[in-house]
Amino acid sequence: MAKISYLGERKVIEKIISNLEKPLKMEIPFGDDVAAVSLNRDTLAVLKTDMFVGETDIPPGMTLRQAARKAVVMTISDFAAKGVKPRAVLTSLGLPRNMTEMDIEAISRGLNDGVREYDTYLVGGDTGESSYFIVCCMVFGTSNAKRLITRSGARPGDILAVTGPFGKTAAGLKILLKGFEVSEEDKTILDAVYMPKARLSEGLALSRTGMASASIDSSDGLAVSLHELRKMSHVGFALREVPVSPEVVKFADRNGLDSVELALYGGEEYELVLTIKPKGWDKAQQALHKVGGDLIAIGHATRNQDIVLRIGDTKKEIPYRGWEHFR
Amino acid sequence: MAKISYLGERKVIEKIISNLEKPLKMEIPFGDDVAAVSLNRDTLAVLKTDMFVGETDIPPGMTLRQAARKAVVMTISDFAAKGVKPRAVLTSLGLPRNMTEMDIEAISRGLNDGVREYDTYLVGGDTGESSYFIVCCMVFGTSNAKRLITRSGARPGDILAVTGPFGKTAAGLKILLKGFEVSEEDKTILDAVYMPKARLSEGLALSRTGMASASIDSSDGLAVSLHELRKMSHVGFALREVPVSPEVVKFADRNGLDSVELALYGGEEYELVLTIKPKGWDKAQQALHKVGGDLIAIGHATRNQDIVLRIGDTKKEIPYRGWEHFR
Repeated sequence: MAKISYLGERKVIEKIISNLEKPLKMEIPFGDDVAAVSLNRDTLAVLKTDMFVGETDIPPGMTLRQAARKAVVMTISDFAAKGVKPRAVLTSLGLPRNMTEMDIEAISRGLNDGVREYDTYLVGGDTGESSYFIVCCMVFGTSNAKRLITRSGARPGDILAVTGPFGKTAAGLKILLKGFEVSEEDKTILDAVYMPKARLSEGLALSRTGMASASIDSSDGLAVSLHELRKMSHVGFALREVPVSPEVVKFADRNGLDSVELALYGGEEYELVLTIKPKGWDKAQQALHKVGGDLIAIGHATRNQDIVLRIGDTKKEIPYRGWEHFR
Repeated sequence: MAKISYLGERKVIEKIISNLEKPLKMEIPFGDDVAAVSLNRDTLAVLKTDMFVGETDIPPGMTLRQAARKAVVMTISDFAAKGVKPRAVLTSLGLPRNMTEMDIEAISRGLNDGVREYDTYLVGGDTGESSYFIVCCMVFGTSNAKRLITRSGARPGDILAVTGPFGKTAAGLKILLKGFEVSEEDKTILDAVYMPKARLSEGLALSRTGMASASIDSSDGLAVSLHELRKMSHVGFALREVPVSPEVVKFADRNGLDSVELALYGGEEYELVLTIKPKGWDKAQQALHKVGGDLIAIGHATRNQDIVLRIGDTKKEIPYRGWEHFR
C-alpha cells in the first residue's frame, strides 16, 4: 500500500477530491486558491483555509510571534492573488500544554499583527491541545464574481508578469538550514523568511482594473506557480527572464550557488504571478505603481503548453519542481 | 511563568482575546459559538472553525473514517445551535507522512459522510504534514440576523430545554478508556462516541419558530453549557431534573456509577441546550416533533444567577466542571 510520502501532496489532494460528492455548480473549481459560494447573481462569498504546522513550518530563529503572523499572512496571500479583500479571519490553534502565558501573549500578538497589517480583524476561533504548535487560519471575504481573478483565465498572448523579484526566501533557508554564511547585506534576505508580506494592495488594485486574466501566489515557488497556471488555463509560457532579487544574485555569487535556481524552485514567497491582457498592460502597471507596488513583465502566455525560458539562443524547459508536502 | 496546563483553556482564550484589536462593531461577540460578518442590513455571513487533533481526540476503536466524519459533525453542531444552515465546508488536514493511500481514502470518505449528512459539501481545503492526524474544519453559512440564536438572549422565566437525554458519550468513554465492561445493550452508547450526530434539523426548525431565546451545543458537557449560557445571558437556572439516557442509567447501575454525574459532566455530546420563551413552548415543541426531534423541558431561567438542581426538597448547586483542554 503506497505511503503518502511516496505519493506526494498533489496526488493526495487528487485522491481526496475523487471521494467527494460535488455540488451541481461550483463557483470556483477545486485546484484554485480559494473556494466560493454564490450569495446572489453578482456576489461571491470567498473562503480560504490554510494550516501552519510548527514542527515543519518554523525555520530556526523565527519567533512565535512571527510564526503566528506568518500563518495569517500566508492565508491572506491567497486572497491577494484573487484580488479579494479579506473581511474577517478566524483561527484554530493547536497548543502544546507546556507552553507558557508568555508564549500565548506572543502568539496572540502575532495573529493581531497579521490581520491588522491587512486591515482586517480576527473575529473567532478555537483552541485545542497538540504536541506541536499549529495555526489553522480561515479567511472570509466577498467579491463581485467578475472581479475575482482565477487561475484559469490566461489566454495565449497575455503578458506574464510578477509583482517583485524572487529568491530571497530560498537564499534565507540556505542560510538558516544549510549553514551558509550570512553577511550584513543579507538582512533583507532573512526578513523575507521571518516577515513575509502578502501582496494584497497589489491584488486589489489589479482586480479593480479588470486587466489581469489569471493569478496565483508563489507560495510553492515560481516554477510551480507557472505550472499551476498552465494546468488551469491550458496555456504555456515563454519566459525571457527569471526575476531574481539583486541581494540573491550577490548571495549566490559569494556562495557558488545558481541564483536562477533559487528564484525558480524556492517557495514560501508571496509575490503574485499573473497574466495581463496586452491592451491593459499600461493600466495595470499604473494601478500597481499607484499603490506603491511593481509589475514586472517576464514573458508571455503561449498556445504551446510548455514552459520555456529563452535567453538569447538558449532555450530551457522549466520543470515542475518546488515545495511539496510529504515528499 | 504560568504554563497553559495550569491556566486551562478558558484563561488561554481570554488571554488571546485581550491582545486582539476589535472591530468597531462585532455582529456576534467573542464567546459565542460562531462569528459573523454583516453582509447587508438583514443578513449575516456566519463562520466557524474547529480543530480536531487525532492524538487527543480519537478514542480507542474509532476508525479514521469516523474521526474525519466527527471533525465535520462537531463543527456543524455549532451551526445547529445557532439555527444556521451550513452552506459550505472547507478543511485543512494535517497528515503524518507514514499514512497510506487507504488512510487517505478513509479520511476523504469520512469528510464526505459528514458534510452530506447535513446536506452540504466540502468545497476546498489544504493539506500539510504533521506528526498526528489533524482536521481543521471551517463552516460557512448565511442567516437572517434576527433568526440567529445567540448564547445571550435567555431571560428569567424562559423554559430551559434540551433536544435529548445525556450521558452516553461519558459512559462510552468509561468503557473505552477505563476498561468498564460493555454489554450487548451498550451498543447505542458506543455509537454515541463513534458516530455522534449534530442536531441540525432541530436547530433550523427552532430558528424558524423564533421562540428560542438562547442556545448552545453541549460539546463540553451539560454543566458547562448551562454555565456558558448563564455567563452570556446573565441569568441563572433552576433544574427540576437531569435528563439521563435510559441506557446510561442501566450502565451506571451495573457498574456502581452515578448516572447524573455522567450526564452533567461529560462532553463530546451534541444535544442542544436551549431557552424557550414560555408563550412559544407549544409551537417550538411541535416544530421539533415535525422534524423527528424532541424538546424536553428540564427547568427554567432565573433572575438569581446560580445553577441549581432541585429534586423534592433537596437543592444542589451544579459546579462549572467538564471538558477543558490543556488541564
